[in-house]
Amino acid sequence: MSNEVLRIVPIGGVGEIGKNMTAIEYGDDIIVIDTGIMFPENDMLGIDYIIPDFQYLIERRDHVRAIVITHGHEDHTGAIPHVLQEINVPIYATPLTRGLIEVKLARRGMLQRAQLNTVNAGDNIKIGPFTVELFHVCHSIPDAVGLAIDTPAGLIVHSGDYKFDHTPVDGWATDYAKLAELSSRGVLALLADSTNADKAGWTPSERVIEPAFEQIFRDADGRVLVATFASLISRMQQVANAAEKMGRKMAFVGMSMRENAKMARKLGYLDIPDSLVVSVEQALKMSPGQVVLMCTGSQGEPASIMGRLATGRNRQFSVEQGDTIILSSHPIPGNEETVYRTINRLFERGAEVIYDPIAPVHVSGHASQEEMKLLIELVRPKYLIPVHGELRHLRQHRLLALEMGMKEENVLVTGNGQVIEFVDGNLRLGERIPGGYVFVDGSGVGDIVPSVMRDRERLSNDGVVIVSVVLDKFTGDPIHSPVIRTKGFVYEPEAQDLLEALERQVYEALGRNLNGSTERYLTDRLRGFIYNETQRRPMVFVNVQKA
Amino acid sequence: MSNEVLRIVPIGGVGEIGKNMTAIEYGDDIIVIDTGIMFPENDMLGIDYIIPDFQYLIERRDHVRAIVITHGHEDHTGAIPHVLQEINVPIYATPLTRGLIEVKLARRGMLQRAQLNTVNAGDNIKIGPFTVELFHVCHSIPDAVGLAIDTPAGLIVHSGDYKFDHTPVDGWATDYAKLAELSSRGVLALLADSTNADKAGWTPSERVIEPAFEQIFRDADGRVLVATFASLISRMQQVANAAEKMGRKMAFVGMSMRENAKMARKLGYLDIPDSLVVSVEQALKMSPGQVVLMCTGSQGEPASIMGRLATGRNRQFSVEQGDTIILSSHPIPGNEETVYRTINRLFERGAEVIYDPIAPVHVSGHASQEEMKLLIELVRPKYLIPVHGELRHLRQHRLLALEMGMKEENVLVTGNGQVIEFVDGNLRLGERIPGGYVFVDGSGVGDIVPSVMRDRERLSNDGVVIVSVVLDKFTGDPIHSPVIRTKGFVYEPEAQDLLEALERQVYEALGRNLNGSTERYLTDRLRGFIYNETQRRPMVFVNVQKA
Repeated sequence: MSNEVLRIVPIGGVGEIGKNMTAIEYGDDIIVIDTGIMFPENDMLGIDYIIPDFQYLIERRDHVRAIVITHGHEDHTGAIPHVLQEINVPIYATPLTRGLIEVKLARRGMLQRAQLNTVNAGDNIKIGPFTVELFHVCHSIPDAVGLAIDTPAGLIVHSGDYKFDHTPVDGWATDYAKLAELSSRGVLALLADSTNADKAGWTPSERVIEPAFEQIFRDADGRVLVATFASLISRMQQVANAAEKMGRKMAFVGMSMRENAKMARKLGYLDIPDSLVVSVEQALKMSPGQVVLMCTGSQGEPASIMGRLATGRNRQFSVEQGDTIILSSHPIPGNEETVYRTINRLFERGAEVIYDPIAPVHVSGHASQEEMKLLIELVRPKYLIPVHGELRHLRQHRLLALEMGMKEENVLVTGNGQVIEFVDGNLRLGERIPGGYVFVDGSGVGDIVPSVMRDRERLSNDGVVIVSVVLDKFTGDPIHSPVIRTKGFVYEPEAQDLLEALERQVYEALGRNLNGSTERYLTDRLRGFIYNETQRRPMVFVNVQKA
Repeated sequence: MSNEVLRIVPIGGVGEIGKNMTAIEYGDDIIVIDTGIMFPENDMLGIDYIIPDFQYLIERRDHVRAIVITHGHEDHTGAIPHVLQEINVPIYATPLTRGLIEVKLARRGMLQRAQLNTVNAGDNIKIGPFTVELFHVCHSIPDAVGLAIDTPAGLIVHSGDYKFDHTPVDGWATDYAKLAELSSRGVLALLADSTNADKAGWTPSERVIEPAFEQIFRDADGRVLVATFASLISRMQQVANAAEKMGRKMAFVGMSMRENAKMARKLGYLDIPDSLVVSVEQALKMSPGQVVLMCTGSQGEPASIMGRLATGRNRQFSVEQGDTIILSSHPIPGNEETVYRTINRLFERGAEVIYDPIAPVHVSGHASQEEMKLLIELVRPKYLIPVHGELRHLRQHRLLALEMGMKEENVLVTGNGQVIEFVDGNLRLGERIPGGYVFVDGSGVGDIVPSVMRDRERLSNDGVVIVSVVLDKFTGDPIHSPVIRTKGFVYEPEAQDLLEALERQVYEALGRNLNGSTERYLTDRLRGFIYNETQRRPMVFVNVQKA
């Protein structure tokens, strides 16, 4: 062992910790694990998505040697286009993960720029002082890996997103032998997925949903529509299996669903015979009892197929009486309201809608408590660093480790931006780096700062009142009536009294002839008047000009 | 039986059906069941709360004979102040329900106006052609009742919010005998709570949380803070029981918590000895291991005690290292994000936070599937009308009834505003009444119409750009530089290039000398320019005046 410092840097802001991007640093060499995005919370108004603030890496771009991606989900791959613009280093990914990254980069016209390298579970990648060994883990997407990172300061194991599924859809179980072998080499620290740390027991195998699918496909007289994430490749396989068994043809609806399925079939991760697949156009011409439509929109996203079907805005086809719709997903926290509203709307349009817990049509892709304990038991790390989860999940993961006999000082619950250092085989806290999240809104990256967000919130709460006045520069009298416009404040046709009262307020205030401070005085006065009259606080803009 | 029409009118909009307010109408007589509010969904921007649109009742106010309230929760009582302003008729409620209504009306200075009548489970109230019999049901608040409404057209049973708790905290089980007796008289229609229609099995008794409370109270070295709804009176009793057993004193924090506890103790629904209760001031002076603070804010509401503690804004005291906080509640759908963020923040401040599913510290107050089936079995109605739930819950409730052998034509899933009629013992659909929900925002009731809400949403997504120009009335040239202001659109200090480009756009457009249509032309042009530059769509206001 060297006595140089090994540093682990979880990059991001408040939210899931160590999830979207993590740096491993030794001397002048850095490798980056994953480059994902976060989805905005409900009060992040107008934001499309969020990327980790990786200024720390930009400042050290000459030290960054490689990016290693654990699997093909958006929260691990989505920020690649942004990172590539600043740090163009070799990217290592398994075949399916690479394929999905290619789809993403091609859409942005960035595929040529990227240095993509295919690796496989079991491979060792030598990067500077690091040897990164990839080991297979089960997750809700095939070809996911965890990482064993051998460093001069000790062996670090990163679980990636994982579950211990004994009967995975692709038949490829998590590599227990490798985990045990790593343990025999002595693991300095285990960074482990905490997503389901508050779920007792063992996450059910992906297989448990097949009987439910088969029964629904059998019982449905009409069409079956299955909505799930476009990246849930194993779910596509299960729908295909059930469709084949029940004599239905299958069509992929929605661009991301079609492209991902095409890539996964090309690479051999989806085993679906050509004879089973039809185009949407063909499916719509067939007898309803003979088709399954696999759609995007399990989170009720307004622009997705299911979101459009729920509100009658899908062009190619509509929900019909007799349709059976399966939502094969759980709402992402914060999306519950949207998902349930979508379900209600689909019912209103005449469909039967089936979702968990009505029937077991979805399982989590993440380990539950007993699996987390097994991972700790298999790897037997000196230090456990719970990652992938909100603080509440990390705290719960810590409790599990303490129950198993790990010592308090050997379990570290921390936050993004907190550098974790290892020297002489011991953990210590390093500096806190500035960081956080960067909002992406339209083509703007990072220009929505907190004050802009606060203004959006104020505008959203009570709207806006805009007053324009032109004064005669000699007499100070208004040349025209003041122009008063409102949006999101009151329903103007029924608020004429209030608008006229506002106009009187403007005239009275102008009568005071305040010169320089007229705009400010008028703004304050109107704000006060409006609050007294309505108990609301719209943003008030007054523009006074002289002519 | 008469051959006049009996009408049931669920009043409200899209959301929970038959929940907040229902009219029962026979000839010229109407009784109203419950007058509750709804809480706004995440995309109802700036709205304080929502009341059912009861225009239907206002138009028939001379026919309304009475309001009967089933229990003291906000979604059944919260709209009383609004209803009283239009329809001041006798209100019937059980003692605790009446007490909580008094607290609410007193705060608004409306207590004197209301005609409140105390009734008890087992009582019959004769109102016009109706005889309303109240029967006891268990729920998460004591003194809840269901209603058996005898009408000339047949017997209607309304479950109210209920669960079949065999070991309720107050020892008072649901009145099974009465349900069976009603069945023997022949029930035309059962309106039954569907809230948990997608939950298998039987809702656990309120009692199951007592061992968890006791263990947490015992294990905690420091203070224990319990957050729950201020109306969850039975939870207060359980906290008191555990506190007494574990040698802690108890304080109520937050006005609604204190007032409700005081009323419930006065009326004998809370059995808490004076020696157990201390003021907050006293509690803060005691040794931390000797106190329990019972607080509002289990939903993370920013203005509640727990919401303020999470963000360090509580005046009287703060969260300290060593505090144990129990959230004795489930997030209301749509509140998940806020609740989990609150939990994370409380952890950050050094507390241990315990919530379901970490420990069984909350159970639902509503029946699950097996209880729903038991209710149907006990009451054996000719018609089942699932109420209290979103459409998805009602549809699931319907499936349960069909599984039990009820016929499709005897189960009616419907929506608010759909009049249900009974003639000669048969159900038929009546008219659809106009209605929906009325938004309350500040002092305004109902003036936030959909177009105003859409404007708020647009404002919240991309902010606002305001441009003012004064033109010389003879030359058409601008007298000053255009004034351009933005809010919630970009961070102005870093968007000077964009703002200057906007100014150039204004000058170029004005060069075209479009006269009458200048404002419209300029608005469209700026919108297009802004979208091209930023991929955002702020609201654009242009004011052009001549002087």
